[in-house]
Amino acid sequence: MNSKYKTVKYKKNKSSNVEDLVSIEEPLEMVVRYKKENEWVDNSISITMRTPKNDGDLIVGLLFCEGIIQKVSEIEKVEFLGEKVGKFDLQNKIRATLNNGENLDIKHLRRNFLTNSSCGVCGKTSMDSLEIICKTKINKDVPKIKNSLITKIPDLLRQSQSEFSKTGGIHASALFNKEGNPLVIKEDVGRHNALDKVIGHCFKNSLFDTKNQFIACSGRLSFELVQKTLMANIGLLMGVGAPTSLAIDLAKRFDMTLIGFVKSDSFNIYCGEDRILE
Amino acid sequence: MNSKYKTVKYKKNKSSNVEDLVSIEEPLEMVVRYKKENEWVDNSISITMRTPKNDGDLIVGLLFCEGIIQKVSEIEKVEFLGEKVGKFDLQNKIRATLNNGENLDIKHLRRNFLTNSSCGVCGKTSMDSLEIICKTKINKDVPKIKNSLITKIPDLLRQSQSEFSKTGGIHASALFNKEGNPLVIKEDVGRHNALDKVIGHCFKNSLFDTKNQFIACSGRLSFELVQKTLMANIGLLMGVGAPTSLAIDLAKRFDMTLIGFVKSDSFNIYCGEDRILE
Repeated sequence: MNSKYKTVKYKKNKSSNVEDLVSIEEPLEMVVRYKKENEWVDNSISITMRTPKNDGDLIVGLLFCEGIIQKVSEIEKVEFLGEKVGKFDLQNKIRATLNNGENLDIKHLRRNFLTNSSCGVCGKTSMDSLEIICKTKINKDVPKIKNSLITKIPDLLRQSQSEFSKTGGIHASALFNKEGNPLVIKEDVGRHNALDKVIGHCFKNSLFDTKNQFIACSGRLSFELVQKTLMANIGLLMGVGAPTSLAIDLAKRFDMTLIGFVKSDSFNIYCGEDRILE
Repeated sequence: MNSKYKTVKYKKNKSSNVEDLVSIEEPLEMVVRYKKENEWVDNSISITMRTPKNDGDLIVGLLFCEGIIQKVSEIEKVEFLGEKVGKFDLQNKIRATLNNGENLDIKHLRRNFLTNSSCGVCGKTSMDSLEIICKTKINKDVPKIKNSLITKIPDLLRQSQSEFSKTGGIHASALFNKEGNPLVIKEDVGRHNALDKVIGHCFKNSLFDTKNQFIACSGRLSFELVQKTLMANIGLLMGVGAPTSLAIDLAKRFDMTLIGFVKSDSFNIYCGEDRILE
């Protein structure tokens, strides 16, 4: 989603008045409803600044990546709430009703997954908590792909993005099959949202065939993106930007293939180099 | 802060084993301690993934930008807590002890400033809440700067960054005077953290002279960055990336100069074009 804004463009000291397309950023409050001791409870789990579109995928992806749901059948319904507000006349509140309330770990609800697991990576017993959440560790059949495929990904990602060429200000995440065909691509001003949307969409529609798939992202590779990819049991993540230290550490811990700085003629492998074919 | 990682680099189908410098990402838990009815209360307000260094500036900047403190004298002390953990042997918990506990608005403590104000931007009465927090609206003496200065900023920002050239994966924010001299520059894997560090440092050291200063950022311009700049009462924000819709809306609401896509020969003005001089 984008919108026109009046802009004064300067180029080589000359100014002109134009209308520029700008990526929309709007807050989305995500609420989880569940039954506890026969009472319905509404719990606001996160407010994120996102680009409106695929909001249902976003909340489902977030719940899945946070370990709050494991099966699609745990979601009873997803619905928008509240009045339409703002210049784009949007409902900026969405609620997922779950039927696993009795087993729900409330501690995990308020976006504190990061709290536990990331502190875990850097110390002591905490790494275990991510392993418990991931339950099945990443499968060992991570796809092997050719190096000539990797260098094609930035172009494929860019071509599949509908918004980037218009606004120059939006991130993309995509699920590819190992032959390099994009299966699902989502865009958002927040790169973690773009990945949540991809994962939510694939989870809802049973599109995962993780042994034969990988994820590619348009930006830098942070801990959070590696963690979400692991939660989806995908063993190969690549991005056009730089990884952080913790992203590499986490990828190594789970023996995931992690590739950064992917360009049309080069890339860096931080983990899993034996799974890259000549 | 950065660290060496073994990397396999592919370039034009040839691979080589190198050691690459990677920006460090580590969690930081930020705790606020205050006295309420003669009892000390510790409240964990945020966990952020940050690049270690200037963590004291980070927590002070966050507290200031969230409207929790208005004066430096409200901070009694800032200290690291907990054991050293992880491969970098760091304390990843920091606590600010405040002496304004009795007046503290607990509702604002848990990083829910965004909740209120951003929902505010998109609807109804809520914009008012940001105005209340900003209290004094942005001053009308926003600096006027020459267009030839703006196009120099990306180079000046890059030259002042100590980490970017090493890792290619870190954001920067800087406070400049209106003559284009960088006064304070901070780097972080999170661009909001980089700006919090700049603002915290300037706030602590009374470096603000807002009529004669502006802020420049290395990345895209989101709502959050505009909001933080407004809280510091700085009326000019520029960035090398794209703005979002909400960033422009907020800048217009406060008549702040907002400039995006700053390059060596071009830039776009989204608000405040009458303050850009030939």
